Amino acid sequence: MALLIKGGTVVTAETTTRADVLCEGDTVVAVGPDLDAPAGCEVVDAGGAYVMPGGIDPHTHMQLPFMGTVASEDFYTGTAAGLAGGTTMIIDFVIPAPQQQLMDAWRQWREWSEKACADYSFHVAVTWWDETVHRDMGTLVHEHGVNSFKHFMAYKNAIMADDEILANSFSRALELGAIPTVHAENGELVFRLQQKIKDMGITGPEGHPLSRPPEVEGEAAHRAIRIAQVLGTPLYIVHNSCKEALEAITAARANGQRVFGEVLAGHLLIDDSVYRHPDFDFAAAHVMSPPFRGKEHQEALWKGLQSGNLQTTATDHCCFCAPQKAAGKDDFTKIPNGTGGVEDRMAVLWHHGVGAGRLTMNEFVAVTSTNAAKIFNIHPRKGTIAVGSDADIVVWDPAATKTISAKTHHQNVDFNIFEGMTVTGLPAVTISAGVVKYRDGTLTAERGSGRHVERPAFAPVFDALQKTADRLRPTAVDRGGKAAAE
Amino acid sequence: MALLIKGGTVVTAETTTRADVLCEGDTVVAVGPDLDAPAGCEVVDAGGAYVMPGGIDPHTHMQLPFMGTVASEDFYTGTAAGLAGGTTMIIDFVIPAPQQQLMDAWRQWREWSEKACADYSFHVAVTWWDETVHRDMGTLVHEHGVNSFKHFMAYKNAIMADDEILANSFSRALELGAIPTVHAENGELVFRLQQKIKDMGITGPEGHPLSRPPEVEGEAAHRAIRIAQVLGTPLYIVHNSCKEALEAITAARANGQRVFGEVLAGHLLIDDSVYRHPDFDFAAAHVMSPPFRGKEHQEALWKGLQSGNLQTTATDHCCFCAPQKAAGKDDFTKIPNGTGGVEDRMAVLWHHGVGAGRLTMNEFVAVTSTNAAKIFNIHPRKGTIAVGSDADIVVWDPAATKTISAKTHHQNVDFNIFEGMTVTGLPAVTISAGVVKYRDGTLTAERGSGRHVERPAFAPVFDALQKTADRLRPTAVDRGGKAAAE
Amino acid sequence: MALLIKGGTVVTAETTTRADVLCEGDTVVAVGPDLDAPAGCEVVDAGGAYVMPGGIDPHTHMQLPFMGTVASEDFYTGTAAGLAGGTTMIIDFVIPAPQQQLMDAWRQWREWSEKACADYSFHVAVTWWDETVHRDMGTLVHEHGVNSFKHFMAYKNAIMADDEILANSFSRALELGAIPTVHAENGELVFRLQQKIKDMGITGPEGHPLSRPPEVEGEAAHRAIRIAQVLGTPLYIVHNSCKEALEAITAARANGQRVFGEVLAGHLLIDDSVYRHPDFDFAAAHVMSPPFRGKEHQEALWKGLQSGNLQTTATDHCCFCAPQKAAGKDDFTKIPNGTGGVEDRMAVLWHHGVGAGRLTMNEFVAVTSTNAAKIFNIHPRKGTIAVGSDADIVVWDPAATKTISAKTHHQNVDFNIFEGMTVTGLPAVTISAGVVKYRDGTLTAERGSGRHVERPAFAPVFDALQKTADRLRPTAVDRGGKAAAE
Amino acid sequence: MALLIKGGTVVTAETTTRADVLCEGDTVVAVGPDLDAPAGCEVVDAGGAYVMPGGIDPHTHMQLPFMGTVASEDFYTGTAAGLAGGTTMIIDFVIPAPQQQLMDAWRQWREWSEKACADYSFHVAVTWWDETVHRDMGTLVHEHGVNSFKHFMAYKNAIMADDEILANSFSRALELGAIPTVHAENGELVFRLQQKIKDMGITGPEGHPLSRPPEVEGEAAHRAIRIAQVLGTPLYIVHNSCKEALEAITAARANGQRVFGEVLAGHLLIDDSVYRHPDFDFAAAHVMSPPFRGKEHQEALWKGLQSGNLQTTATDHCCFCAPQKAAGKDDFTKIPNGTGGVEDRMAVLWHHGVGAGRLTMNEFVAVTSTNAAKIFNIHPRKGTIAVGSDADIVVWDPAATKTISAKTHHQNVDFNIFEGMTVTGLPAVTISAGVVKYRDGTLTAERGSGRHVERPAFAPVFDALQKTADRLRPTAVDRGGKAAAE
Repeated sequence: MALLIKGGTVVTAETTTRADVLCEGDTVVAVGPDLDAPAGCEVVDAGGAYVMPGGIDPHTHMQLPFMGTVASEDFYTGTAAGLAGGTTMIIDFVIPAPQQQLMDAWRQWREWSEKACADYSFHVAVTWWDETVHRDMGTLVHEHGVNSFKHFMAYKNAIMADDEILANSFSRALELGAIPTVHAENGELVFRLQQKIKDMGITGPEGHPLSRPPEVEGEAAHRAIRIAQVLGTPLYIVHNSCKEALEAITAARANGQRVFGEVLAGHLLIDDSVYRHPDFDFAAAHVMSPPFRGKEHQEALWKGLQSGNLQTTATDHCCFCAPQKAAGKDDFTKIPNGTGGVEDRMAVLWHHGVGAGRLTMNEFVAVTSTNAAKIFNIHPRKGTIAVGSDADIVVWDPAATKTISAKTHHQNVDFNIFEGMTVTGLPAVTISAGVVKYRDGTLTAERGSGRHVERPAFAPVFDALQKTADRLRPTAVDRGGKAAAE
Repeated sequence: MALLIKGGTVVTAETTTRADVLCEGDTVVAVGPDLDAPAGCEVVDAGGAYVMPGGIDPHTHMQLPFMGTVASEDFYTGTAAGLAGGTTMIIDFVIPAPQQQLMDAWRQWREWSEKACADYSFHVAVTWWDETVHRDMGTLVHEHGVNSFKHFMAYKNAIMADDEILANSFSRALELGAIPTVHAENGELVFRLQQKIKDMGITGPEGHPLSRPPEVEGEAAHRAIRIAQVLGTPLYIVHNSCKEALEAITAARANGQRVFGEVLAGHLLIDDSVYRHPDFDFAAAHVMSPPFRGKEHQEALWKGLQSGNLQTTATDHCCFCAPQKAAGKDDFTKIPNGTGGVEDRMAVLWHHGVGAGRLTMNEFVAVTSTNAAKIFNIHPRKGTIAVGSDADIVVWDPAATKTISAKTHHQNVDFNIFEGMTVTGLPAVTISAGVVKYRDGTLTAERGSGRHVERPAFAPVFDALQKTADRLRPTAVDRGGKAAAE
Repeated sequence: MALLIKGGTVVTAETTTRADVLCEGDTVVAVGPDLDAPAGCEVVDAGGAYVMPGGIDPHTHMQLPFMGTVASEDFYTGTAAGLAGGTTMIIDFVIPAPQQQLMDAWRQWREWSEKACADYSFHVAVTWWDETVHRDMGTLVHEHGVNSFKHFMAYKNAIMADDEILANSFSRALELGAIPTVHAENGELVFRLQQKIKDMGITGPEGHPLSRPPEVEGEAAHRAIRIAQVLGTPLYIVHNSCKEALEAITAARANGQRVFGEVLAGHLLIDDSVYRHPDFDFAAAHVMSPPFRGKEHQEALWKGLQSGNLQTTATDHCCFCAPQKAAGKDDFTKIPNGTGGVEDRMAVLWHHGVGAGRLTMNEFVAVTSTNAAKIFNIHPRKGTIAVGSDADIVVWDPAATKTISAKTHHQNVDFNIFEGMTVTGLPAVTISAGVVKYRDGTLTAERGSGRHVERPAFAPVFDALQKTADRLRPTAVDRGGKAAAE
Repeated sequence: MALLIKGGTVVTAETTTRADVLCEGDTVVAVGPDLDAPAGCEVVDAGGAYVMPGGIDPHTHMQLPFMGTVASEDFYTGTAAGLAGGTTMIIDFVIPAPQQQLMDAWRQWREWSEKACADYSFHVAVTWWDETVHRDMGTLVHEHGVNSFKHFMAYKNAIMADDEILANSFSRALELGAIPTVHAENGELVFRLQQKIKDMGITGPEGHPLSRPPEVEGEAAHRAIRIAQVLGTPLYIVHNSCKEALEAITAARANGQRVFGEVLAGHLLIDDSVYRHPDFDFAAAHVMSPPFRGKEHQEALWKGLQSGNLQTTATDHCCFCAPQKAAGKDDFTKIPNGTGGVEDRMAVLWHHGVGAGRLTMNEFVAVTSTNAAKIFNIHPRKGTIAVGSDADIVVWDPAATKTISAKTHHQNVDFNIFEGMTVTGLPAVTISAGVVKYRDGTLTAERGSGRHVERPAFAPVFDALQKTADRLRPTAVDRGGKAAAE
């Protein structure tokens, strides 16, 4: 079936053009001025609004089992909320328990995700190491379209990857053409600080940021970067929240290293005063790792996006309701870590980015979809509007306005970290795989209509890295003459 | 007339795709697999090679009157040499003498450039200031498609712009939607060092780099950046040659400032040992400003390209033959400054960039054309291969090889700074405005067939800057109550 | 006459020791445990308090003619206030008007300073240039004990030194063994911003910091550092107020350059909110250049002291009373620039430095006297307590406390920027040239008892710089063979 | 017995003065002009030379059992060689094997060191962790004068300390008033690179630097700094060899952190070309960790000394003769790591530091003795010439010259990394504990005449850190009202 978006201005990461967009089936087949509508074609009147690639949220955790409970948002409700916000694809995480076979976890998550109503893909976490992990990484890359592996440098005594695991997994990823990613916090220091903070008599949520200061994130980011540098792999660092991590990335990139950085919408806009709120529920609802930071970090992160040192925006969408958060009533280390946002990311980025003059529209597209598509090697299928691309499109009304609230959002959680924020610039229509799934406030997303997106192993950056390695390859000194003489 | 490029791999800054390219007249009209050739269409068989946007050299000086002589390469020979090297557009400079009316200089250069055989455009230099300069900047932007103005921070007692001129011109550029550019060397320090070096008895070309050390470039780059920051303008710094300038740009960009940096092919590959060559002619042939630098700077500049802190590559093509250079036989300050390269830029960048694993092919396209087109606001007309773009295309044979030499180059100068360098990867065919002008070593470029390219004033970045300014706009303190009480 | 300080703990920049200090005349003659008091010797019982070198304030402007008025504090009242605060020496400034002969200005200031009651010395400003300035700099160094020259990079159309003056004067200073110092603000940008701010309708004191943002200071600091680097001189930058300047110094020092930085007590402790105070008098009383800055700068400056990247603390003591400040009632650019503090510097540094754990006691001594003495080449005569040193000593009671107020201070001005600040740690006794001049709140400082301190030209650092220069001295290429052949 | 050094210029880190020095027993009792010699006093005629504190080498390994052999230099020969070079004190290391009780190792090293002929002290390494280590650290600080503990971040599967050990030991050191020190190389990465290099077929000494690139040192330095920052301890990093480590230190210091850095004489002067020497013995003789680096690192390290970001110079004196080094003939990972230098450090530092204009004489004293004495809390007993200080003095003849050679040195090893280097500036007389032990080329150092120097736990820096901690101490949020209401 065909769909024609007429009368809009197509905005990609590269260009801004008055053009119509014609989709057939799930694919864009024409982009240009004054396209004719084929017979029987559905027509969406963009009415002068912006027509942009649907958002990609490269960091979500739908229905994650974590800290003794399960995230309230599942793959159906989560992808639906994304569509309501203009996001047409998520990349979630398969997280094997230590000693759990990767393929077992993979099957589990793939089963859970069948109900999604927008496209999705998976990073797979490496939380332990043996020969089966080495083997299964290969299986995942070669047979299942996985090209990224995640490592938690935090969560000591649970899923923390130490230097040995990191080195093993990064090396294996390099062989396979996959990119390593890390959650960068020094787990040993967090562990020690948690004890120390509790020993000082602090048990409430205000203890959470104290136990995870920016320095522990900066340390881990720097360490992961050095390991990647020495082993010759690219690297993607998730949810950078502070200047310390950003500076490590900035320095590495300036040094020519292929390091990429993600920032969450929440870290761009919320500061750490939330943890000292007198209402436990409010404070606990903000508990996530890394925590929200002092105000100076927010401005730094925006500059990271402006400079291109950070390339992607995400949410780490991982929802727990108040009764779940209450598990940590007497001990902040037991509050399930996570906040929502998959629905709000595009709007808050537009309002505080484009609306405030921090980002151009093209940069907005780059950081909400294109860069993620490139880094995870699904561009130009995803992340742009071009002939041959997937018909994942958002019609963006720059004049529409609303006030964000948990009362009205589509997310399946009882709290919204952006509660009360009035934003201008909203999705009017969201199209996924060529089908209108959200229009004028109404979701019509069918359970199970989302597809798993396979992401091929990399070539270009890896080729470049390989050539560099060849250029620099050391050789043995010929001491033969001497040996012969002996 | 139509032209079809068949069987190649289209490489843009964004994507790499097997596709044919169909041009009608001077425009690309289709990009896709297995395109049919219209009747009468000329067909170019790409033979599996890469099909890329023609190069843009954003920094040339054809037939420049300078230091008492005139550059040997004129607009015809220069653009022809560019075509032979895969470059389909140059941006040259109109440089008024102090007190010369800008429009007079403009007309002069436009007349000279009529003979060009590939497209061209002009930056205009602001070398002095009064109300007529203010007025003429407006005329140039509004009526002549100029959107960039150049400032020389060097050349004291000649065309040097001091802080007052810089501030006046930058402010005016901001009003007009034009981008200021600077040649960053502290002219006062160069002047003083030239005297000092000569006082030490050094009169040969080896005195040239001693009189223009990296510090004087770093100073000026930093100063221009600060002025742009305070006045709220974007900034483009030409021919960055050293770590000091690059670090200033890198820091500013990390701070979210809209600063762009250019690097010359020569500065990426040639070090300052050339100035100590015993043959005066050889040494003098390398005299340009800023000079070639110590080896550590070359690697830093490559990293600047890799990191995106430098966006464009150019040549500062400005040719003087040995008899002209001999004017400085007894005084290095009298050697006409300038070297060639417009023909060689693409090949040396490919060989040492893509070939050596430093750059991906997409990055190569970005730094040889796309980024320049974006920064100077002629993208997507120039700098990409897409429907509607100008048919400026190079078919690149990655396996072709040659050894660069003044004996065989098309440039009208008796010296080549890359003499003896064997490069792999060369243009097989160069198409300009839909016409094959270079194929298999043969130039067929018609004198005068090049067109002046008007570059519109900016909107997007300036809009963003304007919004930022509004967001930050200060307000007066209301001390009225007190005043009223008095 | 002899004076024995008994029972204290002698604290220098290097050591902390229980010891008595014996002075004869104006000189320390013994430091050690349990010294015997000579016959007729006055004994000061330190009572366990700290015995430290008297403070040196290297930046004051007593009775300065400036902006159409004259600073209210003269050399007598100013040095007396210093003694009340534990400061036993000031270094003030001779500031010739443009075209005024340096020696004329010198004689004028020397006459004014005769009434001082504590030791003093003078930096001399170079505000213009011709051969007489070159000559007089020599006279001042050789015959009058001047070893430092000051340059204002701000104050366009008045005393601003452009790059040409800076280069001339720095070069001359190097010949003479004198150190150049700069007030680092880009005068062109300040001038332009002042107009812009007023054009926006802002005429009150809140316009002052807007017209002198940190960037203009950072620019000038960086430029002065580069000029010094290229010319091979050391450099001292006065009153660094912001991260941008500090970062320039830090980078230069890390690069091995001999750059020194001063910070004012006010800039360490006061933020720019004062300029938005509704009371004009209050806001105007804080007008000085560079202005007080946002809070993030204060913490950065403390770190500058901790790291040693900033070496000295001063006050830029330059007092104007409310009726004088009122000259700028309708135009912030006409408010006389200046604030006081010579009396308070030591106490606020101790309280917020040592008391808050930011500085050790030894570091306190270093930054309040020793480093200034070393940089301006009067150590160990000044800035330490050792046999042979001047008997300028403060007995410091770490437990004494007071609340700073203009109502009670000794400074001849109607305002105190530290008003209401309660500090712990105060001078109990101040001894100048072996004479008790302040004890237990009572000043007994005789008018005219202060002495002019001659400061010899430098040897050590300059020797080192000279040797470095020799090591790096370039040589001409021998192209003689070729010339001979011609 | 008394000793008078007459006619010299006393140079300390602070001052340069013509003065005589009188010692009684092992102590300096007078410093001043024209001192009278007591009856029976031995007189050393300094003959106009410089009289400086004897050198302190804070990093040596005499008779270390390591990699299956024992270092050839013992405590007697090693301290004697030091005296011949002007070094009057070493700080060596007690290195327990994993699981070895600290006190057992302590007693072993103390027994070995009894034969020393100059003063010495010990850092103690923490190579593993349990409660006995915690306890013994206390015993060492309280009863044995140890105030520094060493941690090896390299040497996986041997003595490597992981983050958990580091955090435990740093925390314990903080309680005790001791300073943690680290050997900064990431052991996991070194281990992996060693395998990789050998897998590439490189087994010779050229593999050594390849397996320990600057990045692995930079990573570890940064990590240790972050751990110290989070835990609130000062930190001392031994043998910084590269820009990466220096930059980590420089950034931390600029941020106000109390981090100290040591550099070895060898790393300042020798580059990594030595490892590609065709003679195995020559190459292997240079094998130490971290290895010698590319030339750009040497200049950076000198700048580190000039800027004060590096404070101390050492040698890591650890000697193995050719037959010992031959253990790694077929596998570079088996070459015993270590080079000599305790005798040469002062001379090479003087020649290339003071002689070349990089350092002033006062800075030379600071980096060869004073700073080490301060950091390890034995100043002013050691590291200066003042009344009450130990009579450890070197009379330095700035005009004396020699060519360094293993044939003539006093070190008990068959190789000298400075072989063939001609230096100007040598010790004429070395005095240890008031006794002339070296004069005019003749050593008269009595076996066993050296003393163990106890180093007290710290106060000042720690007090400051404690106050900072108090100032920043977090508090719990009072959510009591709410709790009460429930």
